[in-house]
Amino acid sequence: MSKDKVQIFDTTLRDGEQVPGCKLDATQKLIIAERLDLLGVDVIEAGFPISSPGDFNSVKEIAKLVKNATVCGLTRAVKKDIEVAAEAVKYAKRPRIHTGIGTSDSHIKYKFNSNKDQIIERAVAAVKYAKTFVEDVEFYAEDAGRTDNEFLAKVCSAVVKAGATVLNIPDTTGYCLPEEYGAKMKYLYENVEGIHKAILSCHCHNDLGLATANSIAGVMNGARQIECTINGIGERAGNTSLEEVVMILRQHPNLNLDTDINSKLLYDTSLMVSSKMGMPVQPNKAIVGANAFAHSSGIHQDGVIKNRETYEIIDPADVGVNESSIVLTARSGRAALAYRAKNIGYELTKTQLDVVYTEFLNFADRKKEIVDEDIHEIISVCNIQIETTV
Amino acid sequence: MSKDKVQIFDTTLRDGEQVPGCKLDATQKLIIAERLDLLGVDVIEAGFPISSPGDFNSVKEIAKLVKNATVCGLTRAVKKDIEVAAEAVKYAKRPRIHTGIGTSDSHIKYKFNSNKDQIIERAVAAVKYAKTFVEDVEFYAEDAGRTDNEFLAKVCSAVVKAGATVLNIPDTTGYCLPEEYGAKMKYLYENVEGIHKAILSCHCHNDLGLATANSIAGVMNGARQIECTINGIGERAGNTSLEEVVMILRQHPNLNLDTDINSKLLYDTSLMVSSKMGMPVQPNKAIVGANAFAHSSGIHQDGVIKNRETYEIIDPADVGVNESSIVLTARSGRAALAYRAKNIGYELTKTQLDVVYTEFLNFADRKKEIVDEDIHEIISVCNIQIETTV
Repeated sequence: MSKDKVQIFDTTLRDGEQVPGCKLDATQKLIIAERLDLLGVDVIEAGFPISSPGDFNSVKEIAKLVKNATVCGLTRAVKKDIEVAAEAVKYAKRPRIHTGIGTSDSHIKYKFNSNKDQIIERAVAAVKYAKTFVEDVEFYAEDAGRTDNEFLAKVCSAVVKAGATVLNIPDTTGYCLPEEYGAKMKYLYENVEGIHKAILSCHCHNDLGLATANSIAGVMNGARQIECTINGIGERAGNTSLEEVVMILRQHPNLNLDTDINSKLLYDTSLMVSSKMGMPVQPNKAIVGANAFAHSSGIHQDGVIKNRETYEIIDPADVGVNESSIVLTARSGRAALAYRAKNIGYELTKTQLDVVYTEFLNFADRKKEIVDEDIHEIISVCNIQIETTV
Repeated sequence: MSKDKVQIFDTTLRDGEQVPGCKLDATQKLIIAERLDLLGVDVIEAGFPISSPGDFNSVKEIAKLVKNATVCGLTRAVKKDIEVAAEAVKYAKRPRIHTGIGTSDSHIKYKFNSNKDQIIERAVAAVKYAKTFVEDVEFYAEDAGRTDNEFLAKVCSAVVKAGATVLNIPDTTGYCLPEEYGAKMKYLYENVEGIHKAILSCHCHNDLGLATANSIAGVMNGARQIECTINGIGERAGNTSLEEVVMILRQHPNLNLDTDINSKLLYDTSLMVSSKMGMPVQPNKAIVGANAFAHSSGIHQDGVIKNRETYEIIDPADVGVNESSIVLTARSGRAALAYRAKNIGYELTKTQLDVVYTEFLNFADRKKEIVDEDIHEIISVCNIQIETTV
């Protein structure tokens, strides 16, 4: 059975760029956009053109530069927003306008001081207006995660009729559990009129640490686009991590879903975005963290040395990491020490290994991480005759 | 309906401590253990006593110090490991030994060069031996995530009969999807003989970014313990984040599950562990990241100013964060600017706000983050007469 394609909508330059501490100038944004295009994303959300003259120009320059991906600009359901976005994306080979409005009770009441009928009217008007500029119009139902499914389906049906090509169902506050988010997607897939004319899109926030799981639940229930960012950066606790959803689909072929991402570029892209934005990635970040492929406990190291797959599901080379590392600490066992010692030229017998290992633990309890130089010193301290292989 | 309690088994000092880059000395471990006890965790896994003399001593000192939590030491299914762990935890008010063995085909074949019957024999022998030292014995079926459910239930039934009080079902490689992990837990809950005598425990790794979602799927399907760490640190991409699972259960009261964690201590505990370990937490980390409660986009800020709940599901005070912050950048709107200007004494009319906002955007496109001092400068540059409130 051939796999269904899931579109990757990257919003690193919009939802990611807006976060506190992120420092990107116009040139850096262009470099990142070019890289995202090379990585194979389907859509680049380049910015929110109405928000500032600087952002407008960035979106315009990105639209001119990008070769393959669709270039998208964000708007509210406001005429002026849509006009400015249309002006910014018009140079793109594949332009998209992303417009929408809040649909949850909380948003309708507190943000818009409005009611459900008016919200549908404004949504339809925005989509129709955007369609006068571009063919490809994505609609977002903000706070869809907390919107009741029946009303959400009504809004979606109305905007599909008005010409929306993509229906973005954001869990804006990062509240949903995967089961709920999946069920919402399934409901929409089954109840939105004319759903075959549009695709459903997941846009999940990570406030409870569930953005990735929710996005996967979404595509398992009918969605065919995931909105995500490199390193999961984005408003508050961030968005879905691009690298995580891509690798989940690749590691679970039975889902019959895949993306066009060249996964070998993931690690380098992560480093590039992190360094240009000045936003650090924690060592224990999935897929791209510094420790993602590092093994330090003795039990694990022993297993990896015997057979990589006992502890590693992803071949590090598949995401552009050179190799998994065996880090020596006081939690390492004899197997790892013998392995590393052999790498630097010592063939230890079992008895010798026992002596060297005891000395190694004394060192490691004090020094934490043991590097090759320390191993030479440890072996010399042991004062035993060892056959060297190099 | 009263809520079922989910036990929190913290392994920051064992699975967390062993990672590359982590620097904890014996005194720091004691300080963290005391803090975990205060936080309200049910079990502290203090270390892997056989691994080194330093780790043995740490476990022993923690066992003496901790007032409320169970103190647990890790072992392989090896006599000497169990004896050393028993010696280390014997000073605890509530001692536990955590022993186990790999049960997946990959582990049985490559790691142990053994077969299924022998694995069950070794598992039972280890549990029985541990029971001669302590009443509370937890058994782990390593790589349970990739072990077929029928064999896993057989192993679990055998160790429960041997006296195991807790059955730890680790997704050692972080491979499972939430649906699968939940289904595995349900299968065990329904098929392990004598399951009422033990509780099922989730131990999930974050290699695909799914540790939190998998743990929640586990407790939704019968597990009543979650193994986790502060900030999600741990081998490779880390373990389940304590702060995430605790807050998910609290934000979803309909699950009818809760923990004894004092959530108001979460943020401070995260800072303490991060600084003592020398392991940074990324700004977009859920619950405890620096940006977790920071709003910078105009659309979001406007909503939060009107009503916090439009964009925030968690009250920051509930996790010990002082307040949500409104950060001014070029992506901020008029509402946020007016709000912050008012905070420092300027009452802007609508017309004045338009003038100041235009100037603000020029500043923000250049300077990224706008602080109060900049607002004074921007307003002075605009050269308009503004009523001040302070």
